Formats: sequence, structure tokens, C-alpha cells
Amino acid sequence: MTDPLPDRDDNARHAEKAKKRKAAHDKKLSGMTDSKGLIIVHTGTGKGKTSAALGMVFRHIGHGMPVGVVHFTKSEKWNTGEAKLLAQFPELATLHIMGEGFTWETQDRERDIAAARAGWDRARELIRDDRHRMVLLDELNIVLRYDYLPIEEIVAVLLDEKPADKHVVITGRNAHPALIEIADLVTDMTLVKHPFRAGVKAQKGVEF
Amino acid sequence: MTDPLPDRDDNARHAEKAKKRKAAHDKKLSGMTDSKGLIIVHTGTGKGKTSAALGMVFRHIGHGMPVGVVHFTKSEKWNTGEAKLLAQFPELATLHIMGEGFTWETQDRERDIAAARAGWDRARELIRDDRHRMVLLDELNIVLRYDYLPIEEIVAVLLDEKPADKHVVITGRNAHPALIEIADLVTDMTLVKHPFRAGVKAQKGVEF
Repeated sequence: MTDPLPDRDDNARHAEKAKKRKAAHDKKLSGMTDSKGLIIVHTGTGKGKTSAALGMVFRHIGHGMPVGVVHFTKSEKWNTGEAKLLAQFPELATLHIMGEGFTWETQDRERDIAAARAGWDRARELIRDDRHRMVLLDELNIVLRYDYLPIEEIVAVLLDEKPADKHVVITGRNAHPALIEIADLVTDMTLVKHPFRAGVKAQKGVEF
Repeated sequence: MTDPLPDRDDNARHAEKAKKRKAAHDKKLSGMTDSKGLIIVHTGTGKGKTSAALGMVFRHIGHGMPVGVVHFTKSEKWNTGEAKLLAQFPELATLHIMGEGFTWETQDRERDIAAARAGWDRARELIRDDRHRMVLLDELNIVLRYDYLPIEEIVAVLLDEKPADKHVVITGRNAHPALIEIADLVTDMTLVKHPFRAGVKAQKGVEF
């Protein structure tokens, strides 16, 4: 991997700025108790980050509440269980997979950035509208980790443009400190035991 | 809570016995690489244990693979998003909620044990049959924590009676050491930040 990662000072500065924005955001929402649109982050090296987000997505579907999903991943697996099930609820579920744009193997950074931008533009529409009750930004953390999108812009949209009752769930390892700072709910999925060490491959229904 | 918890020596002994059974189980399965029915445990004090299990359950549904779900929980919430969505796939999903039998507030231990036993009997049927590809035993860890079911029996059924290609997912805090010992995949959901501290109640679509 030759792409430069953001350095620690940058991260600390962004986290500090985010903290101030978060305080203003909390003040705006003060008084709400029963319901609040949450910024939820699933991070860590263990499994279950995307699965736990999908559990909430499908709870929404079960309740008849519209959801939007953007997968920020490089993957040829379009035929996932989640994609097939979401497709059965066209009135409730919007799915955007930007996977095929990614070119990490070929190190075409400009093309990766363009794909990330297209995914984020779609994500922003879903975050801003009044229709979707939950928006899942799957593996956005990876995109931010490689600095393909500016963290300031993501934080600003989440704090300033997200309707107060909408939940946004962001997954992926190495969540940016500025994102953790503004999040309401952060869970670290910690690896205890993993079957791949025993030579078992990713399985249908479990990993996809 | 007045119920006695199993002591540490008991736990260590059970874990040691489970380790031996697990070795025999692994030997039986040796040679399988591409697919293997996994024993998966989601534990820890963070959120996402049940949600991540449901994500896999709904991936299975999306792929048209039958699943069984047993909720070992005390809850008046029958009208959850997951229950509503599973009910839309009667050919694929079997749901057993043993919640109403539980009486933790009234400390009626005998009645709790009877409810746990009824849930486990149903779970065992689902684990043994050849039809369901994944079985979720939600909050079974809580039941085991209070010694309402004998851990030896659960371990024996998982190792000796589960078809080789079936996945079993077990959730709940404080997973028993003997269960962790025989599991293929264990994730600890670690709390980093929680919105309830800010006075936000459990919300539709997120928690249920």
C-alpha cells in the first residue's frame, strides 16, 4: 500500500474541531429524549461490523421504515444475501454499491477517489432527505482511512444536514477520531477467535 | 439477584472437558475447507450482539436458505422488526420466543428453568434437523449464566448432534468458558460510547 495515511496531528486537529461542532449539534437536539437520530459507528478488527448494521437495517424494513444503504467497498460480490433481500423491498430499500469503481490492486488513486466521491454524493442525498429513517454507509471508514474523502466534509454533513430523527450507521476498521468524537454510539468489534485460521473460507449467509 | 452463579472452578472444569470434546469434533471435520458449519458466539457488554446475528440470519433468508431463531429473553416486545420481517418468510424462517415464561422480577427460579428448558428443547430440534442452515440462540448466554440449563448438555448437543454444515449463533453477555472453548468464531462487542447515558431510550429499528 503506497498511499499516505493521514498523520496523527491531523487526526487530533480534526477531532478537536469535530468536538466543537458536536457540542453545537447536541445543544440543538437538547430536550429530545424518547427518540433521536443517532450517529452509530461499528469499528474494530473483529467480525460483525456490517452484519450488526444490516440487523438494524432489516429491523427497519420489518417495521416498514425506509432505509438507504451505500456500500463503499471493492467487491465483485453483488449477489449477496443482503442485496437479494433488500431487492425484495423496492419501496423501502435503496441500495447503492460503488464497489466496481475501486481499483486498489492497480493503485489508481484518482479513479478510487472518483468512485468514493460518487458513493458519497449518493450517501449525502440519502442523509439529507426526509424519507429514509436509517442510512448505512458500509466501509466508509476504509475510504476515510485512505483520505479519499475529506473528513471535515463528512462530519459537516452528518452534524448540519442530517434530519434530527434519522440514524446513520458507519462501518469499517480504523474509524477516524473525528468520527468517533461526533458519534452517539460506538462499538468496537473485538476478535476473540476466527475460523479462517483453520482454513475455512468466507461462506454464503455468514460473510455475504 | 439472589441466584447463585456457577463458580470459577466449575467453569474451568467444564472448559477443560469441552476442550477435549472439541478436539474430537475438529478431527471429525478435518479435511473440510470450503464450508463448515460454524459455532459462532457474540458476547461482550457492547451493542450489536443480536443485531450482528440477525444480519447473518437475514443474509440466509436473502439466499433462500432456511433459518431457525429462538429468543431466550424476557421481553414483552413481541412486535419487533425482526419478528415482523421473519413472519414474511414463513417457508424460510422458524421463530420461537420463550420470553413470556421468564419471571426474573419475581425470582420464580423453577418457572424460569422450565421456560429455559422449553426453549432449549425447541432449539435442539432446530439444531438436529437437516433443514435449517443457521440457528440463532439469542441470549442463551444469559440463561447459562444463571445455570438454568446444564452447560454440559448444550456443549454435547452442539458438538455431537449438529449437522456438519449447519451454523449455530449464540449471543449474550458473559459467554461461558466452555462455550468459547468449542466455538469456531467468537467476537466481543466492546462498548466505546452509548447513547442511553444521554437519556435516549431504546428505539424502534435500532434496538428492536
